[in-house]
Amino acid sequence: MSTVASPRIQGILSPVLTPFNADGSPDPGRFARHCRWLLDQDVGLAVFGTNSEANSLTLAEKRGLLDGLLAAGITPSKLMPGTGACAVPDAIELTRHAVKSGCAGVLMLPPFYYKGVSDEGLFRYFAQVIDAVADDRLRIYVYHIPPVSGVPITLPLIERLLKTFPGIIAGTKDSSGDWANTSAMLERFQPQGFDVFAGSENFLLATMRSGGAGCITATGNVNPSAIVRLYQTWHNPDADEQQKRLDAQRAAFAQFPMIPAMKSAIALKTGRRDWIHVRPPLVELSDAQRTSLGMALDQAGFVMPNAHQLA
Amino acid sequence: MSTVASPRIQGILSPVLTPFNADGSPDPGRFARHCRWLLDQDVGLAVFGTNSEANSLTLAEKRGLLDGLLAAGITPSKLMPGTGACAVPDAIELTRHAVKSGCAGVLMLPPFYYKGVSDEGLFRYFAQVIDAVADDRLRIYVYHIPPVSGVPITLPLIERLLKTFPGIIAGTKDSSGDWANTSAMLERFQPQGFDVFAGSENFLLATMRSGGAGCITATGNVNPSAIVRLYQTWHNPDADEQQKRLDAQRAAFAQFPMIPAMKSAIALKTGRRDWIHVRPPLVELSDAQRTSLGMALDQAGFVMPNAHQLA
Repeated sequence: MSTVASPRIQGILSPVLTPFNADGSPDPGRFARHCRWLLDQDVGLAVFGTNSEANSLTLAEKRGLLDGLLAAGITPSKLMPGTGACAVPDAIELTRHAVKSGCAGVLMLPPFYYKGVSDEGLFRYFAQVIDAVADDRLRIYVYHIPPVSGVPITLPLIERLLKTFPGIIAGTKDSSGDWANTSAMLERFQPQGFDVFAGSENFLLATMRSGGAGCITATGNVNPSAIVRLYQTWHNPDADEQQKRLDAQRAAFAQFPMIPAMKSAIALKTGRRDWIHVRPPLVELSDAQRTSLGMALDQAGFVMPNAHQLA
Repeated sequence: MSTVASPRIQGILSPVLTPFNADGSPDPGRFARHCRWLLDQDVGLAVFGTNSEANSLTLAEKRGLLDGLLAAGITPSKLMPGTGACAVPDAIELTRHAVKSGCAGVLMLPPFYYKGVSDEGLFRYFAQVIDAVADDRLRIYVYHIPPVSGVPITLPLIERLLKTFPGIIAGTKDSSGDWANTSAMLERFQPQGFDVFAGSENFLLATMRSGGAGCITATGNVNPSAIVRLYQTWHNPDADEQQKRLDAQRAAFAQFPMIPAMKSAIALKTGRRDWIHVRPPLVELSDAQRTSLGMALDQAGFVMPNAHQLA
């Protein structure tokens, strides 16, 4: 273990949307511009998350996109790439690459094909990655998102990982949508230096009040300033009111499939239609849905500051 | 479209178990021996299936294992590799490789990370693979295994695929465990030359009586001759009795996690302990479970002919 610990990444992060071209290839230029815009709003970069369509990207595409960000001058201390994979050697390769690149941490999905697997099997997955990467700088955030992955990260598994790999197991993103679970993680593990990030801004205020680290949220891609403001001012008397507004703004997106809706919102605000592209199995919003999204966002008082930077 | 169609693969196939070494690497030699042994029992090779731990293998490992089989003289007309993937470019690469290698067909999972996706999104996934591979020899078997993948292949999706890509969309493996669904597929699509394979031998007799193509079954790895016998003699008066025996033999495995149990059975019958290895998130059987499995298999009258060929 290193004797001097680097400061941990905290606050608001966003699973960065991955822009595609009309032919389905990723667009590294727009990706870097989007990352820079997020950093300008004080939002950290959880690239290759669920909302990044990360599992729709090949390993080579992910390596290339990460290298492209660094080449474009994005600071790695703001990066928490998703590196989990169904195949352990894939998870090892991308995690090693992220650590060697100086990323602040990695957000790791469990292997998600088999369902009903044991904590022992999941422990071995994380242990094999940690042993193979063999780097003191590695910081793993375990990614609990059972509604999508179908494979939960249980509290006993976290307890065992923390005990076996202190310092390396650094925290979690809890996207269960189940406050009782987030609350249990906060109570049991946050005091041991295990940073709990809520999986959406709906739980941001509650997470901060319970001593958590922040949130990693999809809508950070499109509504960053309002979310960051609550993070920075959650002690203020208007915090509950801020939370209510954030919930309403998120609800405007949640009427639609989330990823296509966020991409459409950026297309609307920037005038760049190519932002709408998604990879299968996702489908872009229809024209009618886009019109209706535009109206819902206007009603929710939604703004994207300096959206022209994304064009 | 080619004017002369090759005969379609039919009968009993097995998702071939992937043997690993103690260090977790795949063992191409044992893999080829296992494939040859299965062919000796008249079992076709659905390599890279669910029971092959295919999603725990990298793309490069799968390419290498397939090349190794061909180099070892395994005939590609008996091969139906699994080539589906969450990332379309990965699915394209492996499918193209399988077709160029002369494989009889490919068994394609849908992209399985996102849940609740639309038929339109799944249609685009298959269409993009078909358009990119652009080879008349391509034969796709769509893989319906909602209990594991979480992403069903619906009847309307099959109808649209068959209409759009006749000849290319060749059939299905139905691992739903829901006879009503298999039966509907048999009734609606088998008459159009869409070959329905049951997902386990439990439904073999019913599938044959409804005009189906056979079954693709995990336990083909360890109980091939009895399953093939029912396929070859399902018109015989003892067919129902055979089916009952098959069900009992399968039940002996189903008491345990299936993949580790089959690997343990081969280890028991060959004396090669290295057959027990699995990759995370799976876990090999404990010594106690192995003992108990051995007794259950003896009780079920389970034999593996010429198991020494697998050692």
